[in-house]
Amino acid sequence: MEFGSDNNAGAAPEIIAAVNEANAGPSPSYGNDPIMDRVRQKIREIFEAPEAAVYLVGTGTAANALSLAINCTPWGTVYCHPLSHVENDECGAPEFFIGGGKLKLVQGDHGKMTPEALQTAIGGTPQGDVHTSQRGMVTITNTTEAGTVYSPSEIAALSRVAKQYSLPVHLDGSRFANAVVATGCSPAEMTWKSGVDIVSFGGTKNGCLGVEAVVIFDPAKAWEFELRRKRGGHLFSKHRYLSAQMDAYLTSDLWLKLAAHANGQAKRLSDGMARMPHVKFLHPHAANILFVSMPRQYHRQAMNAGAHYYLHPFSASLDGPDDERIDARLVCSWCTSDREIDQFLALIRDQG
Amino acid sequence: MEFGSDNNAGAAPEIIAAVNEANAGPSPSYGNDPIMDRVRQKIREIFEAPEAAVYLVGTGTAANALSLAINCTPWGTVYCHPLSHVENDECGAPEFFIGGGKLKLVQGDHGKMTPEALQTAIGGTPQGDVHTSQRGMVTITNTTEAGTVYSPSEIAALSRVAKQYSLPVHLDGSRFANAVVATGCSPAEMTWKSGVDIVSFGGTKNGCLGVEAVVIFDPAKAWEFELRRKRGGHLFSKHRYLSAQMDAYLTSDLWLKLAAHANGQAKRLSDGMARMPHVKFLHPHAANILFVSMPRQYHRQAMNAGAHYYLHPFSASLDGPDDERIDARLVCSWCTSDREIDQFLALIRDQG
Amino acid sequence: MEFGSDNNAGAAPEIIAAVNEANAGPSPSYGNDPIMDRVRQKIREIFEAPEAAVYLVGTGTAANALSLAINCTPWGTVYCHPLSHVENDECGAPEFFIGGGKLKLVQGDHGKMTPEALQTAIGGTPQGDVHTSQRGMVTITNTTEAGTVYSPSEIAALSRVAKQYSLPVHLDGSRFANAVVATGCSPAEMTWKSGVDIVSFGGTKNGCLGVEAVVIFDPAKAWEFELRRKRGGHLFSKHRYLSAQMDAYLTSDLWLKLAAHANGQAKRLSDGMARMPHVKFLHPHAANILFVSMPRQYHRQAMNAGAHYYLHPFSASLDGPDDERIDARLVCSWCTSDREIDQFLALIRDQG
Amino acid sequence: MEFGSDNNAGAAPEIIAAVNEANAGPSPSYGNDPIMDRVRQKIREIFEAPEAAVYLVGTGTAANALSLAINCTPWGTVYCHPLSHVENDECGAPEFFIGGGKLKLVQGDHGKMTPEALQTAIGGTPQGDVHTSQRGMVTITNTTEAGTVYSPSEIAALSRVAKQYSLPVHLDGSRFANAVVATGCSPAEMTWKSGVDIVSFGGTKNGCLGVEAVVIFDPAKAWEFELRRKRGGHLFSKHRYLSAQMDAYLTSDLWLKLAAHANGQAKRLSDGMARMPHVKFLHPHAANILFVSMPRQYHRQAMNAGAHYYLHPFSASLDGPDDERIDARLVCSWCTSDREIDQFLALIRDQG
Repeated sequence: MEFGSDNNAGAAPEIIAAVNEANAGPSPSYGNDPIMDRVRQKIREIFEAPEAAVYLVGTGTAANALSLAINCTPWGTVYCHPLSHVENDECGAPEFFIGGGKLKLVQGDHGKMTPEALQTAIGGTPQGDVHTSQRGMVTITNTTEAGTVYSPSEIAALSRVAKQYSLPVHLDGSRFANAVVATGCSPAEMTWKSGVDIVSFGGTKNGCLGVEAVVIFDPAKAWEFELRRKRGGHLFSKHRYLSAQMDAYLTSDLWLKLAAHANGQAKRLSDGMARMPHVKFLHPHAANILFVSMPRQYHRQAMNAGAHYYLHPFSASLDGPDDERIDARLVCSWCTSDREIDQFLALIRDQG
Repeated sequence: MEFGSDNNAGAAPEIIAAVNEANAGPSPSYGNDPIMDRVRQKIREIFEAPEAAVYLVGTGTAANALSLAINCTPWGTVYCHPLSHVENDECGAPEFFIGGGKLKLVQGDHGKMTPEALQTAIGGTPQGDVHTSQRGMVTITNTTEAGTVYSPSEIAALSRVAKQYSLPVHLDGSRFANAVVATGCSPAEMTWKSGVDIVSFGGTKNGCLGVEAVVIFDPAKAWEFELRRKRGGHLFSKHRYLSAQMDAYLTSDLWLKLAAHANGQAKRLSDGMARMPHVKFLHPHAANILFVSMPRQYHRQAMNAGAHYYLHPFSASLDGPDDERIDARLVCSWCTSDREIDQFLALIRDQG
Repeated sequence: MEFGSDNNAGAAPEIIAAVNEANAGPSPSYGNDPIMDRVRQKIREIFEAPEAAVYLVGTGTAANALSLAINCTPWGTVYCHPLSHVENDECGAPEFFIGGGKLKLVQGDHGKMTPEALQTAIGGTPQGDVHTSQRGMVTITNTTEAGTVYSPSEIAALSRVAKQYSLPVHLDGSRFANAVVATGCSPAEMTWKSGVDIVSFGGTKNGCLGVEAVVIFDPAKAWEFELRRKRGGHLFSKHRYLSAQMDAYLTSDLWLKLAAHANGQAKRLSDGMARMPHVKFLHPHAANILFVSMPRQYHRQAMNAGAHYYLHPFSASLDGPDDERIDARLVCSWCTSDREIDQFLALIRDQG
Repeated sequence: MEFGSDNNAGAAPEIIAAVNEANAGPSPSYGNDPIMDRVRQKIREIFEAPEAAVYLVGTGTAANALSLAINCTPWGTVYCHPLSHVENDECGAPEFFIGGGKLKLVQGDHGKMTPEALQTAIGGTPQGDVHTSQRGMVTITNTTEAGTVYSPSEIAALSRVAKQYSLPVHLDGSRFANAVVATGCSPAEMTWKSGVDIVSFGGTKNGCLGVEAVVIFDPAKAWEFELRRKRGGHLFSKHRYLSAQMDAYLTSDLWLKLAAHANGQAKRLSDGMARMPHVKFLHPHAANILFVSMPRQYHRQAMNAGAHYYLHPFSASLDGPDDERIDARLVCSWCTSDREIDQFLALIRDQG
């Protein structure tokens, strides 16, 4: 019963198989491997972006930080949601890679910035006043950290605000596949057709070992990305193993199938919990993450029986009154089984 | 006939097998996987350093830049050889991670700093004068970029100079195993017993897919390393795949066996070339890298027949007079075969 | 009628005289001038801090950014008020000098953080979790940007929160003298006796040409400050001219007299405006800055007749309906005259 | 007998007078003072550069570091002489402001890079290879740190090399006036007519209190300069005092007159020493700095009698054998008197 994180899941068999296969014989290093040529081609097709520059790195933090660094000056402001990964979960990687930038928090319910709040935040950054950090760029997370999903039109609404100020837009898509599956839109609709300039296209959480693509729709910044990637220590010598993962991930819609499974299992889980009056959902759920609240006793039952997931905040404890409500995050992955879900549901069923 | 780089070689079967094996079931993320506990234990044993802090990253540049960053202030000077990887091959990663440091070049033949040159360089950096970059640290590469090897006593001699000024010493060991095999010393003798404070212990070039350990003998800097690693985007979520590589690498002396093969094949190659009067060796060779010079015609014969290796400088060309001498670097790896070597030797044999 | 900024005022005659006097003959450079010895001694006496390290720089942004940089790691969080100078008016200097730090905004009315909000902010930064920016330090502004003043006991309350987490406390005292005069406390009570570790002690706004002292109560960080100052381009070669300003500023309580004048004139101004029903005060005022709101027509009358001050926000306009209320900031300085105030009061008197 | 540094000299009477005069009444802050308009105009005229952007800062290190930062990417290489101020005397300010750049040392006798060495250095930086720091920019110092002077044609020869690689050229002119006087060329000939893109135009060492202008011939980088200046803490609030210094400096050729005096006194000094067989000159001298060698006894006589200047290296001592030769630097300033020189010459005259 693993609902802790999609990072705790292993890699899909097809991905592992591709890594094994890539191992045969010598191969050019540092991204010059022929598998990378295939990856570049596939991503361009999937995103309907024949000019896009495509790069691979090993972690989502690297993908995000490098994406921000090539789009934001050191004195620029990155507009992001308070719950975003760049703000909360990267130990200041954006500030480090940008060279001392500033993240400005843009509110919105359920992990989603509103266009109005974004407008206020950007508009409230004085233009042409040397005393303040300048307007920089916008970064949107989809699937959000709250497990919610922006539709393409919602992204387009944010991008319109950004574009009104000529600011580039980044999409942190560490769970991009889950968002695409949840909305049913195309990758192009989720990104450049909605005004997104650069994407962190995640693989790791969705069945890879460790690979994220950065897709840059305007290739003018490509060389700078390459330099920053190398300088950041993120250019892999035996790059073929990153390429192989991504290649398999993109083959026969594997990336969509894995995400569809994860989303589907989250739905199975939420359907089960929705029938329990002691469970409350904290956010609308559309992808593979659920935030719920239930009395402590149910958490205790589940966790003591081996269910693994995180209470929110991390400092929450199983010790305390039975009926005090505690929040929790439950994540399904590409390999979450029906059995895990049903077992968990049985554990938190009201025994009354 | 692959002599281009040990980065062009694949991964050893044992390493790939371990990655496959690690894939089963869920696992804690971000370095909390149980395999990492084994790795930590093994490295401490191999280095006879029960207190050492041990971390894994995906690239050698990351290992080096993070190691320097925790040991050198932003206004510090890193003393290194002009041919070192940190100076030439990392696109300024040390300066970036240190926060604007300065690398000062310390001369010495065949890729090896001399203690005298190091003494002059450190001594020549004024102490307590706010106008200049300050004394920072020393970094030594072993196996060197010239394919030569420092003995433990040579490293100790450099460390003694560093210690005289209370400077920490880093060892860039992207080819650490080759140096250990070449000298016959123990890892401890090569490092802390010779005054080294922190090591980039390479796996990638010697049969892994992509993993380098950083071994910090004084764990006081461990937490800072963790923060800088995360902030640099170098903490892997599915860390188990790094752990699994390193675990297999360290099992049953695999790391030494792979390096012994690479070194042995380089010896086979050099023995063959030593019998050819038109071949000159540019550096003493003790590990898995040879630098040679021969008339262009032989390079042409070899490369046209499929031998892959790099001319020095990169801009050198196969076009030109037959008898003009051109330098080249030849690298053997854990999987270089007798057949590749013999085939290459046949190609460059004097047909006269 | 200059109420725009105390930065628009010139220098006090005593300060200018000291600069002239310092010009005679040669003098050691880079802070080794004998006048600096006097300055150091005087500041130590005034702050009752015989061990304090004392340095001079030319701007308040430099004083602040360097003070933060020696007290906060690159991955640290600086807790500050949303209206603070470091957040709003330094174009990211703190982030730049710190090497990519994060400023976290701590709310509170009238420009003053509350201990409760500070507790929540620091406590809400997870400890020992490598994923987030770490707890760093606290910076308090006194006189605040809202023109209000923290009492020593209010500062002590904030410091107690900081100390509970072992965080250093910086005081941005670009208008330190105004706060001391307003509260009647001693410099020591305002700072180290209330838990402050380092102070930007402003001179420029209060009658100097351009000089700010940094007072470091624990001299352990002194050498790092010197290096960062030099490296930041903030060590003046002809340092005697900074020293001379500060020396005169500290002689015969000049700094307090100048601030008392500025505060007194602000009181005269506010007393006059308090009798006008169309004027509203936006913040309590205790020092030399008033924030007021009044219908546009009064601003128009005053400004058209030559009064100089800033509307808030800067984008507010004199064009528009007469009776719409517009906010403004009015600043008195060491040289604001009775005549300027009376003339201004006459202009905004209700003609009805 | 002050020959230690032109930084030890005070300010010229005209400069001090201008500061006094600028003090009257209120003035716009942060560079918007009307005196700055005059300064801008004068510099454009003097440099025959009607489009140039002109900014003032308080120190030479700030002028240099900001000039480099707007012309060099963080991964760029700055080509400079080993004796240059940016390499030796700024505690890593260039690396800090650039964001982790690399300085590559270009040799040449007497403090002057040769075009051949520059060609080799730039050409030796691989182009389009992501592994190495990239080609960045060239910085030339005139008057050099060795007291020698580049002629405009020598600067043009260096610039031609830079331009061949499309690299910008910076001139560190902390002693620009001395070089102009020494060569008899115009400011335009020394700079943009010889291919220089940006100049640190020094005032401090030549009779100001503390002001350096940065002259940017292509104003496209002007806004970035303003942001970096603010962010570096180098935008002065009471900017009028910088403006006033520079305004007086440029009025009635004062800057040239002051430099002519300094250069002339250095010639008087060298003429006197040239008649003494025990004195050797270490570099050709053309400006206001002499490097000489003489037996220790003469240094001892001079210094014991009150002459102030620096031995080279700083660690050299007056204690030791009488006849051992010791190097020294002697600097004349705008206010060095005939009497100081004659007194010094008398002291070092051979008594034999």
